Amino acid sequence: MHERIADLKRLLGEVADLNGALAVLFWDQSTQMPPGGVKARGRQLATLSRLSHERLTSPDVGRLLDELSPFGQDLPYDSDEASLIRVARRDWERATRIPSAFVAELSAHQAATYEVWTRAKEAADFPMVANHLARTVELSRRLADFFPGYDHIADPLIDESDQGATVATLRPLFSELRTRLVPLVKHVGALEPADDSCLKVHFPASEQLAFCTFVQKRIGYDFSRGRRDISPHPFMISFGVDDVRLTVRVREDDLGEALFAAIHETGHALYELGVSPALDGGILAEGASSGLHESQSRLWENIVGRSRAFWTYFFPRLQGAFPVQLGDVSQETFYRAINKVIPSLVRTEADELTYNLHVMIRFDLECQLLEGSLAVEDLPDAWNARYESDLGVVPPTAREGVLQDVHWFQGVVGGSFQGYTLGNVMGAQIYQSALGGRPEIEREIEQGRFDSLLGWLREHIHQHGSKFPPAEVIQRATGAPLGIEPYVGYLTTKYGELYDLGS
Amino acid sequence: MHERIADLKRLLGEVADLNGALAVLFWDQSTQMPPGGVKARGRQLATLSRLSHERLTSPDVGRLLDELSPFGQDLPYDSDEASLIRVARRDWERATRIPSAFVAELSAHQAATYEVWTRAKEAADFPMVANHLARTVELSRRLADFFPGYDHIADPLIDESDQGATVATLRPLFSELRTRLVPLVKHVGALEPADDSCLKVHFPASEQLAFCTFVQKRIGYDFSRGRRDISPHPFMISFGVDDVRLTVRVREDDLGEALFAAIHETGHALYELGVSPALDGGILAEGASSGLHESQSRLWENIVGRSRAFWTYFFPRLQGAFPVQLGDVSQETFYRAINKVIPSLVRTEADELTYNLHVMIRFDLECQLLEGSLAVEDLPDAWNARYESDLGVVPPTAREGVLQDVHWFQGVVGGSFQGYTLGNVMGAQIYQSALGGRPEIEREIEQGRFDSLLGWLREHIHQHGSKFPPAEVIQRATGAPLGIEPYVGYLTTKYGELYDLGS
Repeated sequence: MHERIADLKRLLGEVADLNGALAVLFWDQSTQMPPGGVKARGRQLATLSRLSHERLTSPDVGRLLDELSPFGQDLPYDSDEASLIRVARRDWERATRIPSAFVAELSAHQAATYEVWTRAKEAADFPMVANHLARTVELSRRLADFFPGYDHIADPLIDESDQGATVATLRPLFSELRTRLVPLVKHVGALEPADDSCLKVHFPASEQLAFCTFVQKRIGYDFSRGRRDISPHPFMISFGVDDVRLTVRVREDDLGEALFAAIHETGHALYELGVSPALDGGILAEGASSGLHESQSRLWENIVGRSRAFWTYFFPRLQGAFPVQLGDVSQETFYRAINKVIPSLVRTEADELTYNLHVMIRFDLECQLLEGSLAVEDLPDAWNARYESDLGVVPPTAREGVLQDVHWFQGVVGGSFQGYTLGNVMGAQIYQSALGGRPEIEREIEQGRFDSLLGWLREHIHQHGSKFPPAEVIQRATGAPLGIEPYVGYLTTKYGELYDLGS
Repeated sequence: MHERIADLKRLLGEVADLNGALAVLFWDQSTQMPPGGVKARGRQLATLSRLSHERLTSPDVGRLLDELSPFGQDLPYDSDEASLIRVARRDWERATRIPSAFVAELSAHQAATYEVWTRAKEAADFPMVANHLARTVELSRRLADFFPGYDHIADPLIDESDQGATVATLRPLFSELRTRLVPLVKHVGALEPADDSCLKVHFPASEQLAFCTFVQKRIGYDFSRGRRDISPHPFMISFGVDDVRLTVRVREDDLGEALFAAIHETGHALYELGVSPALDGGILAEGASSGLHESQSRLWENIVGRSRAFWTYFFPRLQGAFPVQLGDVSQETFYRAINKVIPSLVRTEADELTYNLHVMIRFDLECQLLEGSLAVEDLPDAWNARYESDLGVVPPTAREGVLQDVHWFQGVVGGSFQGYTLGNVMGAQIYQSALGGRPEIEREIEQGRFDSLLGWLREHIHQHGSKFPPAEVIQRATGAPLGIEPYVGYLTTKYGELYDLGS
């Protein structure tokens, strides 16, 4: 059987290599590629996507899995081998439902759509990309239809990025969260918003990036195993456990933009960099779900990166980097500025309290698009109406509205956004457990040290890659199923103190 | 039959897509990849190389070619379809001789060797990479052995990059060239070398690169269809006819380094950018041979880029870019500086007269390595001895000696260098024909215009991609078989005038 496992690893290793190559093609397209490259890149992405899918769904893999599955059940559940057999079977069963030609068609369409979206966003012109998006919706529906037996058309797409989650489980979770958060948002919203003008003066890009490098290195990002580039939409991408890259965008009139993107994407990257080397080159060498990935990025960005403890260490150094801009700003003023709560237009720039409202809008709209109860041509109006009713703001153009996020324009419609809120909820629960296990974490953060926190995350989350489904990862790491109390508690304490709510 | 041709195009299009993806992986490795990426990249390159080879050698392709070959012979010889069938058959017949496992093994070894070479070169430590090179020699021999029926073990490797050339045809060509050039080198060598100190003061890298951009754009390089990066060894690479990239290296104490690399690589790039759009995405969308590629790069770098006419336009602008460094330098002093003849250590920095001696040393040494008459451990001594006897100089370290060129450390040993001298010879013959066809070319160059020259090259060389073997391209473009007279004539005239040889 060990020979069979080696065969399986070899075949799935090819799939992982093709997926790694696809990631390089995508990264290059997003950060380096000249405009002329788009046509050839679309062809290359489509061909490699199809080959990856063909390899994963080959009858050889199916036969090996049939032979190995009974054997895998005799192995320890959490061994690498048993996990590989288990996860490969799920991947194989899902992938075999999708025809290879569809994979190539979708991939070519996505590459073309991404290119049009970048231009449409720049021109704030939704109609420019509307036909492409309509076709994405159609392709997303066809994709969902390959998976019968789900209750809601979005469910198979959600299941792909956040295994086990469904519209039926997410709606009550989101609803409960909204019920608990809205009073807090209203309380704070009635007060004078914090003054964040100290973040909005001129900060030269190169100096911002130098400070980002400093912060990333302190947190634990190893630039010999990754790099940072500029792209319109920040992202993290892995080509292997020792080459995990990220991107940021920089605004010279907003210090928060690059800084918190760098911390956020570093959070994602640390997850991938922390996967056990034994899993490198295989299909298990990646984060377990979209939500778990966001739990890491948002834990570092918000719970750590927007905390008093963090800036106790970093603020004097930030002042040193920007003496003219920040020399006269107090740490407390800065702390309040980076935690300013105000309903806003752009998800990635939203504060912690209103952030999930952005996610819920997108979640509802993509469900409606898939259901067919909302037409693509009506999407901008629906988007704007929801922003007005939920957040009290209306995007002046589609650039700050429906075109702001890349997800629908480079992926599918469905399952794209729930992970962000799941991640917030998971992150708080995980952090609470980490603190329980290693109480020295907060003191270390004040000293700019992150070994205990990162060590705990590696041990309980990162090293396992995608061996276990997200619900199991949470149960194993925290000893409890996912719940919203740690997250609501975290927000209530932090913003209660900040805004003196007494609660 | 048209349906069969479409099938063939589709199957070979996949090969072209895989090769395009391989090119992106290689480019990233050479210009962007963090050190940690090397292991995963080796796996990815190996897997994609193997898949590309498997696809090319698939029985489906063989069957289609069997069906199509008679049909192809009825089509006009120079039609795209007839050429595709003809070239695909040759590629298929060659590729089917090589086992896919060997392709993957070689590719993984090359990626590992490249990484070790970059460190070995930096450390000037040949033994560090000697075992890797020894294995490359062994793999190169095995590769050659897949092709029986050649006279010399290097022949199949030469035939791969310069179809039709053999050791038996190259040795007399090189020998004749040496006989004609050595007296010229000796004449010039007896004189005081030109003063090139004006190139050796401080030129800030960013300003050098800005001037390179200016020159490249004037020549006709379109940055929306390519980009320029920095790498230890300059190269050009194509991902498709609208994404053709190049690299340079910059030395702040040597103006010539980046400038002539930029012109040289732009020459390569213009070839790939000029391939007919009808061939895009297929196996014909690339230059026809190593020698023809060098004919383009060296034509632009030397015949054009080191001419009086070229600098009549550009020198005042170069002075404008570097007023402190060049304000007091005359155009004639600059012209003599960039055409200084002096035996030197590094091929890529060699003058036009001694350049081919560098090539011949490498050609002879790689033949000896393949024959087994030279052991890898003895290579540095053999290298140094030949430099001493042929050029009268001895490398102080392996960095300026045997480790200077990337070729043996990222490719195979055999067939790596003859293309440079073939390119020089071809380039002069091609330029002579271009001048014959469009006498206005020289006057335009004085005005910084290159439309007529580039137009002639596109029409007679570039557009055809690899439809015809190199000897045919030369015959079609120039009306004559390849001969050394135009090249020897060009050098004799140029350097006779420069050094007042009276000839």
